[in-house]
Amino acid sequence: MAVAFRYPRRVQFHETDLAGIAHFSWYFRYMEEAEHALWRSLGMSVAPTDGAVGFPRVAASCDFKAPLRFEEEFEVVIQVEAVGRRSIRYACTLEKGAQIVAVGSMTSASVTRTADGRVTAVDLPEAIAARLR
Amino acid sequence: MAVAFRYPRRVQFHETDLAGIAHFSWYFRYMEEAEHALWRSLGMSVAPTDGAVGFPRVAASCDFKAPLRFEEEFEVVIQVEAVGRRSIRYACTLEKGAQIVAVGSMTSASVTRTADGRVTAVDLPEAIAARLR
Amino acid sequence: MAVAFRYPRRVQFHETDLAGIAHFSWYFRYMEEAEHALWRSLGMSVAPTDGAVGFPRVAASCDFKAPLRFEEEFEVVIQVEAVGRRSIRYACTLEKGAQIVAVGSMTSASVTRTADGRVTAVDLPEAIAARLR
Amino acid sequence: MAVAFRYPRRVQFHETDLAGIAHFSWYFRYMEEAEHALWRSLGMSVAPTDGAVGFPRVAASCDFKAPLRFEEEFEVVIQVEAVGRRSIRYACTLEKGAQIVAVGSMTSASVTRTADGRVTAVDLPEAIAARLR
Repeated sequence: MAVAFRYPRRVQFHETDLAGIAHFSWYFRYMEEAEHALWRSLGMSVAPTDGAVGFPRVAASCDFKAPLRFEEEFEVVIQVEAVGRRSIRYACTLEKGAQIVAVGSMTSASVTRTADGRVTAVDLPEAIAARLR
Repeated sequence: MAVAFRYPRRVQFHETDLAGIAHFSWYFRYMEEAEHALWRSLGMSVAPTDGAVGFPRVAASCDFKAPLRFEEEFEVVIQVEAVGRRSIRYACTLEKGAQIVAVGSMTSASVTRTADGRVTAVDLPEAIAARLR
Repeated sequence: MAVAFRYPRRVQFHETDLAGIAHFSWYFRYMEEAEHALWRSLGMSVAPTDGAVGFPRVAASCDFKAPLRFEEEFEVVIQVEAVGRRSIRYACTLEKGAQIVAVGSMTSASVTRTADGRVTAVDLPEAIAARLR
Repeated sequence: MAVAFRYPRRVQFHETDLAGIAHFSWYFRYMEEAEHALWRSLGMSVAPTDGAVGFPRVAASCDFKAPLRFEEEFEVVIQVEAVGRRSIRYACTLEKGAQIVAVGSMTSASVTRTADGRVTAVDLPEAIAARLR
């Protein structure tokens, strides 16, 4: 498995809910922000302007171990867990100092748009796969 | 000014913040949801699939008079305040029963994308202007 | 397993992303909105004003089968899959007509706040458990 | 007027909409994130844990001059425009390099919660007012 990439983040006010903690839907956005920062660190974008290939999410899951509060700082630790022929799977851990806040995963597919506008699965471009491995 | 259109809405949990009320950024989304429901009621979409003309926001403002809490029901009352040659201005009131919760406005421009990809102002299509008036 | 509860929803503009589809984080919010509508249908709120017991999310997952586009209408079909001593598990399906758009699940714990401010697990109140079963 | 505080930010994927640009509601969140970073830079939080005084938004407005796209970097330049007896007004500019992306303002009130639970206006604590000036 690839080396872990660390993405530092702070909880914003608008991410909290009436329970006083970051809403669980934000954990998935935190993981995605880390994924995109990882791609940038490798010189790539998940949404290149040529737009030949896209990477829609096919699965996501998260176990929530501890709350995150307004202004708290934490890190998303993301690793490329598997690079398949037509998919990428990431393993994520959210850490607040020594505390594990959440453990999650995300899987994306590799798709392209055909001439008639349909979205269809396509092999992950080798240049991308190589960098992610 | 056109007849007022009423859009009923309920505050969702993920829209609240740690102060226990709907975050102020949501008021702008509530107004926009009402705008799009108004367009649908006139047989139109702000994002038609042909995509010839788009309507980016050029201004938005809101005065917040009262909080909205989780599960509360309210209405966005939206009116087309002005249909210009290249813009549309809406006036909105958020009402919770007899109480005025907020008063806001939004202005959109009418733009198109040229062959070389630039976004440029364009006259509001007459078919759209006529229905909004 | 309890009877399925159906929650109708329409995709809003602000829920779409640059790929032209509802962002995957919204699927979790759609499921939660359905959960809260289910509770209301049973005469309950997940955030009662007395606030004695709270229900933080401990796990959530979703498999994404098909995209949802702006203004499309769909339904979240939610079922109480398991009512444990200190947890509730929901099974959800997002349906667009006859098409399965997504399959997900959410698990919440039952907690209370002690006199010294700590959050601690607590048995699900029987009045709530009985209605959810 | 106080010295301008600069808050750097990058557009995240989930902040874009189907038009391929950051949704206008995000500009208000960008301004608020800058406000809270400004408070932290002064050794304060808008949501202190003692919670004696709160700062609900009473007005917000924005003129949108240019779009922001996925992964673009920009800065929110925020200034305390006026510190009133019971309110704070901020002036904001969003800048992408030399380009003005948006010009906005936000006004917050100073409130407290009375023993019987009502929210009522209260003088801005002098310790806070002094630092903001």
